[in-house]
Amino acid sequence: MGEKVTITDVARAASVSPSTVSNLLNGRSKRMRPQTKTRIENAIKALGYRPNKAAQQLKTGHARIIGLIVPSVANPFYGMFARHVEKTALAHDYQVLLCNSERDSARERDYAEELWGYGVRGIIFGSSLMQFSHLDDLIERGLHLVAFDRLTQEQDTMIIDSIGVDNAFATRLAVKHLLSLGHRRIAFLSGRIRTVSRIDRLNGYLSALRENGIEPDDDLIWHGMTNGSFGDADAIERGRQGAHELFSKADPPTAVFAINDMYAFGAYAGARDLGLVIPDDVSIVGMDDIMLTEVVQPPLTTIRQPIAEIAQQATERLIGRIQETYTKPQEHIVVTPRLIVRGSTAQRANGSHGHK
Amino acid sequence: MGEKVTITDVARAASVSPSTVSNLLNGRSKRMRPQTKTRIENAIKALGYRPNKAAQQLKTGHARIIGLIVPSVANPFYGMFARHVEKTALAHDYQVLLCNSERDSARERDYAEELWGYGVRGIIFGSSLMQFSHLDDLIERGLHLVAFDRLTQEQDTMIIDSIGVDNAFATRLAVKHLLSLGHRRIAFLSGRIRTVSRIDRLNGYLSALRENGIEPDDDLIWHGMTNGSFGDADAIERGRQGAHELFSKADPPTAVFAINDMYAFGAYAGARDLGLVIPDDVSIVGMDDIMLTEVVQPPLTTIRQPIAEIAQQATERLIGRIQETYTKPQEHIVVTPRLIVRGSTAQRANGSHGHK
Repeated sequence: MGEKVTITDVARAASVSPSTVSNLLNGRSKRMRPQTKTRIENAIKALGYRPNKAAQQLKTGHARIIGLIVPSVANPFYGMFARHVEKTALAHDYQVLLCNSERDSARERDYAEELWGYGVRGIIFGSSLMQFSHLDDLIERGLHLVAFDRLTQEQDTMIIDSIGVDNAFATRLAVKHLLSLGHRRIAFLSGRIRTVSRIDRLNGYLSALRENGIEPDDDLIWHGMTNGSFGDADAIERGRQGAHELFSKADPPTAVFAINDMYAFGAYAGARDLGLVIPDDVSIVGMDDIMLTEVVQPPLTTIRQPIAEIAQQATERLIGRIQETYTKPQEHIVVTPRLIVRGSTAQRANGSHGHK
Repeated sequence: MGEKVTITDVARAASVSPSTVSNLLNGRSKRMRPQTKTRIENAIKALGYRPNKAAQQLKTGHARIIGLIVPSVANPFYGMFARHVEKTALAHDYQVLLCNSERDSARERDYAEELWGYGVRGIIFGSSLMQFSHLDDLIERGLHLVAFDRLTQEQDTMIIDSIGVDNAFATRLAVKHLLSLGHRRIAFLSGRIRTVSRIDRLNGYLSALRENGIEPDDDLIWHGMTNGSFGDADAIERGRQGAHELFSKADPPTAVFAINDMYAFGAYAGARDLGLVIPDDVSIVGMDDIMLTEVVQPPLTTIRQPIAEIAQQATERLIGRIQETYTKPQEHIVVTPRLIVRGSTAQRANGSHGHK
């Protein structure tokens, strides 16, 4: 092992005091002369000095790490989201600690506590449970949250920044598209509805139907099993199972809105298993627009979330809060999603089951 | 803000000395009486004491965090790999810091240094560049590495644990499957070949052809552009582009081995763009067996990597090294991959271009 280079070595090489070096390392260099700065930076490079981050963070009170809690990176949507968050964070010299919550609030809580213990002062929640009360005390102590994909809820007791698409509007877009193609029996295919975004999507579905004179049929709302895992790894499998059940009903749907593209892909498999042709026999709309939507056959009609922009804004807002460079009141930024029409939706066939 | 509970408060509540509490927190409790342990643990719970991890880690010298550097979680294979690593790590009370390297060695180096600075003493490399010389000094200072998907290379200067499938064997499986179906013009479709695993796969391809009396044709080896990004986000797009170029040749391939399933999906799109039907006109084999392989149409023939087992072994080995509970010599664990035959491969059609 080489001998450890200390802050004193750097100070000596740069002909400054150790506290001057420490000031630069801890970002207190506003009134430092540029030449001094350069001299210290050169000494750091020449000696190969690496500050001990744990010690540094004890001084500054925070680590240059942000947390990102997503349901599961097994869903390519969250994989892509994580990648965009990381890109923005790196540009601000922050690292990202990624956690998969499987939408479990106890696990979210555990993660948040661990992260807090490591000096993490900001977390992006990539999918949002009904409330954050399990995080109340951490927020009170200075933890910053930015929630993706939820707006403030009535139960909320604290104010946080959030950003996401208008989920109710997203489903309304999907349902209206299907209605315009003559569909009347439109199913809602989802996993357990435990997040704000899923509730909003369900509400958008219900209201779009009602506005068009169609009373929602409980039989056409499938939301998985009441127990078992809540992750995204088996989303395709559950989508397939849901499609089986829906298409096997006495009066089956002619169209399906799937809660995300993974469920939609599951519905593709489920339809095929039963010999149904998409879009001739059944139309399918997904949500997210992950990169595989153009590869499946037929290409998937879906609701696109502008994921890069959302991730960037969420990350910059969070870092701004941590560094106190952004101090305006908390906001809810709502991005409008877009309908991308591809080959999985078509005019309802005459022979198929219609609205009674 | 609530008042901060200190180690002294816990000690007082448990009627022990603060150093006894500290011993328990830092894992030095082997000779502690069980009753004492229980009393301290109860006091910690009752008072809601949260140890300062940064301080703790200054003492123990390491954080309960492992690093995981993958090319990109935008590829669902690595998303799934990350999920399995996290699962195993959590079971051992470790967190996972996830980094996307985009297969860039400077970025790997930056990440490793950052992680080291935070007290991280172990990193899993989820895709492996040719050498680790850029990490030599960190390894010398005590950083543990477990490499996924590479064996020791001639250029290697240090010994590390590794685990992965036999990549050359994997491609041989694929090529032999295609040969058995009568194909002679078999293309190799890949992004830039800069990792050990990709070199091994190419070698397996070349040797399987030669063993069967077929001289490899450079024209059928496509490995992307020589510049531009090296990530996985655009793997589908590049696979599609490669397929366009390959299938547009005067003497095109009748079958394609794709470096991973994402490239294979790109080849699906590329074949379709040109009006080619899979598997009637062209057979395609992928690698990884990500969860979408059964959903695409036709379902993809691919080489399966036992990802859950690999991730678990890699994680346990790494934690064993960090905690010094595993001290045997470094090993290279080579897992045998499996060919999964689905609908994307078929007997070569009579009318198509064959071996000249």
